[in-house]
Amino acid sequence: MKVKCALIQLAFRKGVDNALTAAEGFIAEAAADGAQLILLPEMFCCPYSTKKFPEYAQPDDGEMCRRMSAAAAKAGVWLVAGTVPELVREEDGTEKIYNTAFVYGPNGREVCRHRKIHMFDVDVAGGVSMRESDTLAAGDSITMFDTPFGRVGVAVCYDLRFFEMFRLMQKAGCGIIAVPACFTAKTGAAHWEVLFRSRAIDCQCYLLGCAQTRNDSAPYVCHSHSIAVDPWGRVLADAGTDECIVYAELDTEVTEKVKAQLPVLKQLREDAYHL
Amino acid sequence: MKVKCALIQLAFRKGVDNALTAAEGFIAEAAADGAQLILLPEMFCCPYSTKKFPEYAQPDDGEMCRRMSAAAAKAGVWLVAGTVPELVREEDGTEKIYNTAFVYGPNGREVCRHRKIHMFDVDVAGGVSMRESDTLAAGDSITMFDTPFGRVGVAVCYDLRFFEMFRLMQKAGCGIIAVPACFTAKTGAAHWEVLFRSRAIDCQCYLLGCAQTRNDSAPYVCHSHSIAVDPWGRVLADAGTDECIVYAELDTEVTEKVKAQLPVLKQLREDAYHL
Repeated sequence: MKVKCALIQLAFRKGVDNALTAAEGFIAEAAADGAQLILLPEMFCCPYSTKKFPEYAQPDDGEMCRRMSAAAAKAGVWLVAGTVPELVREEDGTEKIYNTAFVYGPNGREVCRHRKIHMFDVDVAGGVSMRESDTLAAGDSITMFDTPFGRVGVAVCYDLRFFEMFRLMQKAGCGIIAVPACFTAKTGAAHWEVLFRSRAIDCQCYLLGCAQTRNDSAPYVCHSHSIAVDPWGRVLADAGTDECIVYAELDTEVTEKVKAQLPVLKQLREDAYHL
Repeated sequence: MKVKCALIQLAFRKGVDNALTAAEGFIAEAAADGAQLILLPEMFCCPYSTKKFPEYAQPDDGEMCRRMSAAAAKAGVWLVAGTVPELVREEDGTEKIYNTAFVYGPNGREVCRHRKIHMFDVDVAGGVSMRESDTLAAGDSITMFDTPFGRVGVAVCYDLRFFEMFRLMQKAGCGIIAVPACFTAKTGAAHWEVLFRSRAIDCQCYLLGCAQTRNDSAPYVCHSHSIAVDPWGRVLADAGTDECIVYAELDTEVTEKVKAQLPVLKQLREDAYHL
């Protein structure tokens, strides 16, 4: 079975309405081009800034979610709607904000949400210093959803660095793993492609990464290069750094061939994985 | 602390004595050039063939081990002596053969031996079909040894595809992981470099892979390209396909910097790694 997927590499726009309107236009365009699975970037309608997350955060019935749900329904596609700062009011009145990827089915219903598990708390020499955990709460669950073209796992950006999540999604039968992301220019140049390729090779599934465009005068410079990799580790699409949609055709037959040739999941030696 | 390491990319030679003599010469040369840690390739004095392993197998007091132990002592180096088919006689009289990396210290004593855990049982379209488990037994232990320049982990070839081993060695504090290997031409072209780089990035340690030369008229064509990668994923050395020694300088300060910038080991979310 084949499925066409689209990675929408958006530029940052001031104003939530502007960002949502742009996303809606690209989603309609990708659907018209035959895409059935569409991804948006991490924090696509909010500045990537720990100070700004509280200002932009919305609950799951806010404008960001409502319009992306409607866009998925209108286009009739599976939409991994990038991420947004999700505002959650606890029973005791306290508020939490998660970096959350909402996923909508072709009828517009939410099929799952993945709250970024691994907080981007780093201090890269000559690069970015950032502590997401200053204003964000961390998720605690692996997230997957089922489609006619198979099970799809979801991870967000820094989650990519933690192999354990990906092995679990592989074991659960994911054929595709979708990763809204926003790697920095420095870590992206060094690690973006090699990590997407190795996760695809190790987990023998398609890896999709969707990032924002690169703007070297922005406070946070995104590496861009939205990417699709097949289960053999071949790069099927690389979006470069400008605003665009890139497409990739995923084929479950390719996955089955790779698994037959190198049956690594059957060859795991759990009995030996201890010290 | 800095340590110079050498990867000896050997050509296959007919006859165990010829192979050992060549290895001895290169070990002496590398030591004279200042190398303190030296690697040889997988099955460096035996054809890489399941049928041949029983014919070439020797116990741990055989010629192969004795001469490599002596070579380490003479050169005063830490030697990961590639791998050999290790013959083991069980108490009940049965025999087993392992694909074993013996490691000798500068005094020539064996400090550990790693028996390849993951058997290379694959069937690659347009590539190699092989079943190591037809004649080899699989090891069942993670292997590490301690040196003045830190803890070193050992894996053999196909073990590289199984991340779990590498995470355990990282958690146990390895700063270097040494991998005698012999990837095929096809899987090597697709996966060799990307897997070595991603293991180094994920585990934030030096990865060293040592392979044989490439001989396109041999029954088993090795990808070659012995490789050294630093903890940021940079390729420090790539041996190409001819017989040679390549050197790389490893620096524990580099490792510490990488760990400080991206403290991934502290950021693991073991609590979330379940379905």
